[in-house]
Amino acid sequence: MDQVTSSAAQLRAGLQALAHPLPGGMRDLLPWEARQQLHLSRVVLKAFELHGFQQVILPAFEYADVLEQGLGPIEANSVLRFVEPETGEVVALRPDMTPQVARLVATRLASEPGPVRLSYRGSVLRRRHERARHQQQVVQAGIELVGRGGLAGDLEVLEAATHAVRRAGLERFVLDLGHGRIASSLLDDLSAEARERLLEPLTQKDQAELVRRAEKLGLSAARVRALAALPELQGGGEVFDAARRLLADTAALPLVDELQLLHRAVEEAGLAPSVVVDIGETRPFAYYTGPLFQVLAEGPGQAVGSGGRYDTLYERFGVPRPAAGFAVHVNNLGWAVGDAQRLGIPLRALVVSSPAASGTADAAGAAEVLGTLRTAEIPCALSDGTNPLDYARAWRYSHVVWLTSARRVRVSQLTSDGERDRGEVDVVELPARLLAG
Amino acid sequence: MDQVTSSAAQLRAGLQALAHPLPGGMRDLLPWEARQQLHLSRVVLKAFELHGFQQVILPAFEYADVLEQGLGPIEANSVLRFVEPETGEVVALRPDMTPQVARLVATRLASEPGPVRLSYRGSVLRRRHERARHQQQVVQAGIELVGRGGLAGDLEVLEAATHAVRRAGLERFVLDLGHGRIASSLLDDLSAEARERLLEPLTQKDQAELVRRAEKLGLSAARVRALAALPELQGGGEVFDAARRLLADTAALPLVDELQLLHRAVEEAGLAPSVVVDIGETRPFAYYTGPLFQVLAEGPGQAVGSGGRYDTLYERFGVPRPAAGFAVHVNNLGWAVGDAQRLGIPLRALVVSSPAASGTADAAGAAEVLGTLRTAEIPCALSDGTNPLDYARAWRYSHVVWLTSARRVRVSQLTSDGERDRGEVDVVELPARLLAG
Repeated sequence: MDQVTSSAAQLRAGLQALAHPLPGGMRDLLPWEARQQLHLSRVVLKAFELHGFQQVILPAFEYADVLEQGLGPIEANSVLRFVEPETGEVVALRPDMTPQVARLVATRLASEPGPVRLSYRGSVLRRRHERARHQQQVVQAGIELVGRGGLAGDLEVLEAATHAVRRAGLERFVLDLGHGRIASSLLDDLSAEARERLLEPLTQKDQAELVRRAEKLGLSAARVRALAALPELQGGGEVFDAARRLLADTAALPLVDELQLLHRAVEEAGLAPSVVVDIGETRPFAYYTGPLFQVLAEGPGQAVGSGGRYDTLYERFGVPRPAAGFAVHVNNLGWAVGDAQRLGIPLRALVVSSPAASGTADAAGAAEVLGTLRTAEIPCALSDGTNPLDYARAWRYSHVVWLTSARRVRVSQLTSDGERDRGEVDVVELPARLLAG
Repeated sequence: MDQVTSSAAQLRAGLQALAHPLPGGMRDLLPWEARQQLHLSRVVLKAFELHGFQQVILPAFEYADVLEQGLGPIEANSVLRFVEPETGEVVALRPDMTPQVARLVATRLASEPGPVRLSYRGSVLRRRHERARHQQQVVQAGIELVGRGGLAGDLEVLEAATHAVRRAGLERFVLDLGHGRIASSLLDDLSAEARERLLEPLTQKDQAELVRRAEKLGLSAARVRALAALPELQGGGEVFDAARRLLADTAALPLVDELQLLHRAVEEAGLAPSVVVDIGETRPFAYYTGPLFQVLAEGPGQAVGSGGRYDTLYERFGVPRPAAGFAVHVNNLGWAVGDAQRLGIPLRALVVSSPAASGTADAAGAAEVLGTLRTAEIPCALSDGTNPLDYARAWRYSHVVWLTSARRVRVSQLTSDGERDRGEVDVVELPARLLAG
C-alpha cells in the first residue's frame, strides 16, 4: 500500500471508529496485543497452581448490594452500577474480585475444611475519577488464602506472588510492604468526617495539608507530629526504629512490630531483589486490616501487583476467618516485562497452492501441506493467492510456503526487512525445516 | 464429617446462599467444575490457531446501539441492556460475539488485507425467555472468517470447527446443515407482521399452526403446501430431491442448490461421522444469509456449537464483506464429552511437616519438599497439620506426602475408597515416585 492509500485507509478506519465507539475505558486487543496478555495470564496462573491455589470462575456481574457488603463506603464509590430498566434491579461490574471470592467461600464452600486456596482470572472495572465515564477495564490474575492468619499466611501469599512475577520474566522488581491499619489507627477515635478529611492528604502524601487540617481539627501536638511523620517513614529496615520512636505511645506500635516481623521474614526468604517499607501507606480499598503488599517495577505507572491481609472481610459475609490475597495486574506486568516482541514471532505458515510459474492451483497438494503442518502442531492457513507476502506480513505469519511441484515446497521466511529463501524440501520434511527456525 | 453435621453444614451453606444471591442465570464454577471448562477452551482455541485463526480480546460490554447495528429487531430483544444512572447511557452485555468482531474489523482492522481470520473466547449473556430475569451466561469459543465467501469459506469454517470438537474428545456427533434464507425467502413479499406470524410456528416446527395461520393470511395453496412441507424436509442427502420438487417455482430453489453443494463437499471431506440436512431450519439470530451449521451430540439439550454465513452483516458496519463463523458452546461441549472425571485426577501433593510420631514440625524440611516438587512442576501446598487426609480429599489432592526424617518422605495416594501407601523415598526421588502414578 503506498503512502496516500495508506493515509486514506487510516482516515477511513478513524471515521469507522467514530461511527462505532466503545464505552470509555473499554478496549479491544488485536491478536498481537492479546498474545502477550494471554501468555502472561497462563504463566501467572500456573505459578499459583504450583503453590496449591486452584482456579475458580466467577460471574461477570453481581447484585450491587451483595458485592458492596465486602466494600467500605469509600470504595463503594468506585463500583460501576447499572439498573436493569424492566426490573429496577441494580447490578455491579466488579471493581475487585476479592469480595466475590468471599461470597463464594461463604456460600458453596462454607463447609470445606480450611485453609482455602483459590485463584482467579478476570476483568475488573474501576472508575478512575469521580466522573462516571472514566472507568478502566483491568485484567487481574490473583489468589485468595482464607483461614490461614498472621505471618505464616502473609508469607505463603508473598511466596506465590513473587514466584508468579519471576516466572513471567520480571527479574528487577521492588516489594513494597505497608500496613492497612497503622495510619488509620491514629484516627480511630475521630469522627468519620474528620477521618476522611485527614485520610485524603495522607493518601496523597501531602504533609503540609495534613498538618494544616490536623491542627484545624484541634489534634494534640504529639498526634500531629506522628501523622506528619508518616509519609516520611519510607525506606529500608531502618525506618522501623524511627517509626517505633515516633509512634511510641500510640495504638500503631504493635502494628509496626507486626510489619517488622514480616519484613525480616521476607528478607530472610529472599522473596524479592529489593524490599522497601512504607509505614504511611494507605489504600483505596479500606477492607485491609494488616500488611499491604505491592510489587513495583520500572515501566507502568501503577503496581504490577498488589494485595494484603483483610481479617474482617469474611465476617461481613457471615463466616469470620482470617484472609489474605494478591492480584497481578496483567496489563502492567506486560508493560514491565517489556515489549510483546520479546515473546518472539510465533511460528505460523501461509500456504500458497498456485505458484506464479504454473498458475494452476493444486488443491489436493495444499490440503496435504496443511494437514502435515497441523499434525506437527504448526498453525497454518491457505492463501487465496493474492499478494501472499504482503498478506503474511500484515497478519504476522513467520513463513510463506509455496507448492512447487507434487509433494515439494519452497519456504520463505519473513524477516523484519524482507524475506529470506529457506530452500526447497519435500512436504514430509517441511515441519522439521520450519521448526529449525 | 458425620451425617448430622454434614446436613447442618449444608443447611448453613444454603442459608448463606440465600443471604448472598447471584443474579438469575449467573453461576460460580468451583475448581473441579472450572477445570474442565478451562481445559476445553484451551483445546478448542488451539485447534482454531492451527487453522490460522488468531485470538482477539473484546470488552465485556458495549454501547447497546452499536451492538444492535449487527442484530435484527427480533434478536435485539434478547440483549440485556443496562442504564448507567448518572449518564443515562445504555450499555449491553453481548448476546453473541459476532457483531462485536464485526465492529472491531470495521474499525481497527479495516485496512488489513482479507480474508481476516480471528478467534475469541468469552461469556455471552442471553435472555432465555421474555422475562428479564431469565438470562443465561454461556461461555463461547469461536471463529470469524471475513472476506472469504461461498463454498470455500463455509468449508474452511467447518474444517476448523469439526477439528476443534474432535480434538476436545467428541467422537460421536452430528453435523446439522440448514440455510438461513430458504424458509424466509418464501415470506419475503409479505408484511413484517405476517412474516413474524409465520416464522413463529416454523421455528417451533408446528405444522398445524403454520398451515392455519398461512391460510388465514390468504396465501396461495402452492405456497401453503411449500411452507407446510418445510419442517419435514429433514434427513440425509435424499431430502434435496424432495425439496427441489416442492420448492420448484419459488425463490428458495437456488438456495437449495447452494446447500446441496455444501452437503456434498462436507460428505466428501469426511468432516463429520454423520451429516443431516434440515431445510426448514430457522435461527433466532436473523443475520444469517446462507448455510447454517450446528454440531449436535448426545447429552446437552442444546447444540455443542453453531454458526453459519452472514454476508450482509458487515455492510451494517460500513465495510461490506462476505463472512462466516462458528462458536463452540463450551459448557455444552463439556456435557457432551462426558464427566469431568475423564480428565483424571490432577497430580497435586499435600505436604505434612510434622508426623504424629515425632510431633515436631520440620519447617526447613517441608520447604525443601515443596521446592523440589515445584521445580518438577508438581502443584503442592503445606498442610497445617489438622486431619491431612480429610483436607486432601476435600480439596482434591492426589497424594499426601509425610516428612518422616531428614530428607525422607512417606507417600500416600488417595483413591476413591481410601488411601494407598506408596512407600518411603528420599526427597530427591519424590517427583519420580509421584509421576509414576
